[in-house]
Amino acid sequence: MSKKLSTEPYKGVRDFYPEDQAFLNALFKTMRTFLEKVGYVEYHASILEPSELFKSKGADNEEIINEQSYTFVDRGEREVTLRPEMTPTLARMVAHKRRELGFPLRWYSIPNCFRYERPQRGRLREFWQLNVDIFGSRSIYADAEVIGTAYGLMRALGGTESDFVIKVGSRPAMNKVAEDAGLSPETTKKFFGLLDRRDKISKVDFEAGLREVGVSPAVVSADAVPEDIAKMIEEFRAAGVNNIVYDPAIVRGFAYYTGIVFEVFDTHPQNNRAVGGGGRYDNLTALFDDEPLPGTGFAMGDEALRLFMEVRGLIPEYVSPTQVYVAVTAPELALQAQTLAGEMRRGGVNVAIDFGERKLGDQIKVAAKHKIPWLIVVGENELTSGEFKIKNLASGAEEPVQREKLAAFFSDKK
Amino acid sequence: MSKKLSTEPYKGVRDFYPEDQAFLNALFKTMRTFLEKVGYVEYHASILEPSELFKSKGADNEEIINEQSYTFVDRGEREVTLRPEMTPTLARMVAHKRRELGFPLRWYSIPNCFRYERPQRGRLREFWQLNVDIFGSRSIYADAEVIGTAYGLMRALGGTESDFVIKVGSRPAMNKVAEDAGLSPETTKKFFGLLDRRDKISKVDFEAGLREVGVSPAVVSADAVPEDIAKMIEEFRAAGVNNIVYDPAIVRGFAYYTGIVFEVFDTHPQNNRAVGGGGRYDNLTALFDDEPLPGTGFAMGDEALRLFMEVRGLIPEYVSPTQVYVAVTAPELALQAQTLAGEMRRGGVNVAIDFGERKLGDQIKVAAKHKIPWLIVVGENELTSGEFKIKNLASGAEEPVQREKLAAFFSDKK
Repeated sequence: MSKKLSTEPYKGVRDFYPEDQAFLNALFKTMRTFLEKVGYVEYHASILEPSELFKSKGADNEEIINEQSYTFVDRGEREVTLRPEMTPTLARMVAHKRRELGFPLRWYSIPNCFRYERPQRGRLREFWQLNVDIFGSRSIYADAEVIGTAYGLMRALGGTESDFVIKVGSRPAMNKVAEDAGLSPETTKKFFGLLDRRDKISKVDFEAGLREVGVSPAVVSADAVPEDIAKMIEEFRAAGVNNIVYDPAIVRGFAYYTGIVFEVFDTHPQNNRAVGGGGRYDNLTALFDDEPLPGTGFAMGDEALRLFMEVRGLIPEYVSPTQVYVAVTAPELALQAQTLAGEMRRGGVNVAIDFGERKLGDQIKVAAKHKIPWLIVVGENELTSGEFKIKNLASGAEEPVQREKLAAFFSDKK
Repeated sequence: MSKKLSTEPYKGVRDFYPEDQAFLNALFKTMRTFLEKVGYVEYHASILEPSELFKSKGADNEEIINEQSYTFVDRGEREVTLRPEMTPTLARMVAHKRRELGFPLRWYSIPNCFRYERPQRGRLREFWQLNVDIFGSRSIYADAEVIGTAYGLMRALGGTESDFVIKVGSRPAMNKVAEDAGLSPETTKKFFGLLDRRDKISKVDFEAGLREVGVSPAVVSADAVPEDIAKMIEEFRAAGVNNIVYDPAIVRGFAYYTGIVFEVFDTHPQNNRAVGGGGRYDNLTALFDDEPLPGTGFAMGDEALRLFMEVRGLIPEYVSPTQVYVAVTAPELALQAQTLAGEMRRGGVNVAIDFGERKLGDQIKVAAKHKIPWLIVVGENELTSGEFKIKNLASGAEEPVQREKLAAFFSDKK
């Protein structure tokens, strides 16, 4: 006997069995339906990118590219990176066709992204990440729209206002705090890092840290709301949206942000994390050409959203897309089962057949394992009489139906 | 000025701008709808796999793993491969949960796969590949079903019987030819390679090659149809399917095939290629455990299918998912445009708004560039009167509609 291979997936990534994939498809469908409702169109790109796209100044989060990216040299000596995030690719694509595209441009994508991290709850080496962006507008209403879109999506997934909070911060406001305090670029970086970690450390440590970099805790207070954000929050309130707040500590990791930044937090005690976030980045296409093209947008990860939904019972129970399983009493009847299935399919019913290689009882068990709701047995008697017993696999109830009425019977059950 | 980055994608892969992505989504939707109709359920997996999965005996096509795979060592010293095909992953997943799954199992997936090849028409370094498989059946009707499913899918995409032909071959029959001729394993490999190249070389060279390896051209003739394939073709004819033929030269590249093999050929002179193929592989899960679990299935590539559809005018014209563009006469009206858009969206209409940063004429041009069918202008007059002019961007025709009737107006146009 030769050594057997492991059936485990690569570390930190997931296999999607049909029930997992059904959830992912339903999640993506909700995303697509909602985003198209509010005027976004879908784009996509390869996961392979020249590494320089992520290494370039402006696009980088140093930790991600230097320590967490999947980067390698291909057989043609090109350095390639599996995208750790979508925004640089998006900026590249927009810059590539900027003459043809027309602005404001509303784009979304649901790419898979890759980070070499220690796998943990809600954090994986390959994840799906919804990206929603507007290019070509400097309007505060573009920022408000992406925040409102993140809000609308959380609601479309079944969340109520108490299930999440959107915290809005301001890069320019914090830049001004740093400038007013006379911080060096180095110390400013430390200051931002401290803001980013605020929720992970104690109030005492946070304020001590602020004093250490040379910023008064009073300046970094939620009471001193920047004017643009105050007006935005007020307009959201007027529109009936009440869980958007100012939080000076929201600065976001990526270096490319230049304006309003925000994060969407799950408020459930078991899910103490951001499910997504974003902000304004006005200089990203400058990597490719000299004409500035402002951008604003956000991203959300599939696993954080799944946990958000799971803990609140928002994930629907799996039902097979197959409505009917046709069992056969003998293998010789497989062709006739196929013909019968064809009749029902033409009537709009999703049907799978058995090939009759196992006992009838086992065939019924298989249909139940697959969570197929209905079963029909095909035997010589049924084929002769033209009457088939329909079995409801959940209740066990049986009902006789004439062959020509089968398709209509199941179409009614959808 | 700093050196600017290229906006080109990585060599041999594609960017999917909205029109490209819309095609891909429509293609995938046709696949999903058709496959679920005939009883298949969707699974998925990460593109990252331990390299040993593809290197292992039985799973390999040596050329692909040794010369064409994207293989690298991760930051944890694991050798990783970006999947060049899905079947080994599928076998791994099925073996992993074989006690729970229930057979026959009908699974499909639309993974992206990666091969380091010289990019050419219909051949890319990253491609999408539909995979359709049945596990746990040795029935010839399982083989017939996957062939019939490939046929049905080509028809669902708009193909007629003259647009493609399905050529069915037999590994056991060709193995027997090799055995009867007393070929060594080495020569058998040469013999199979020759069969695989038959359509690329002249008849004279093909027959000379056969004689060289020691096989009579007469034995490898389409007249000597194996019994099981003859019966299958007859049953397909009886069911009204006439473009499935026996072709002894179909052997397929992968080493894991053990039974019937087949390829779906595009018959258009410009598209002289297989759009997909597959066959029976009864020993693949033996890589993971000792209990054999037979499989049969096929795969089809997105680009070959796109070319199949393109050359026959089967690709529908792109229309934006956004139905209405709301233009504004001044930036101050953005909030009111947002409110109006919200009313229409609640009525089921997909709406994008402009932020009023460009002239009205430019806003109209943007809507047209985005291929949005309708446009509404929001100005002070319209807001006061409650009557809005609706512009059909294709015909240029305008029509006045009352604010409260806007949603109904567009819902009717779907």
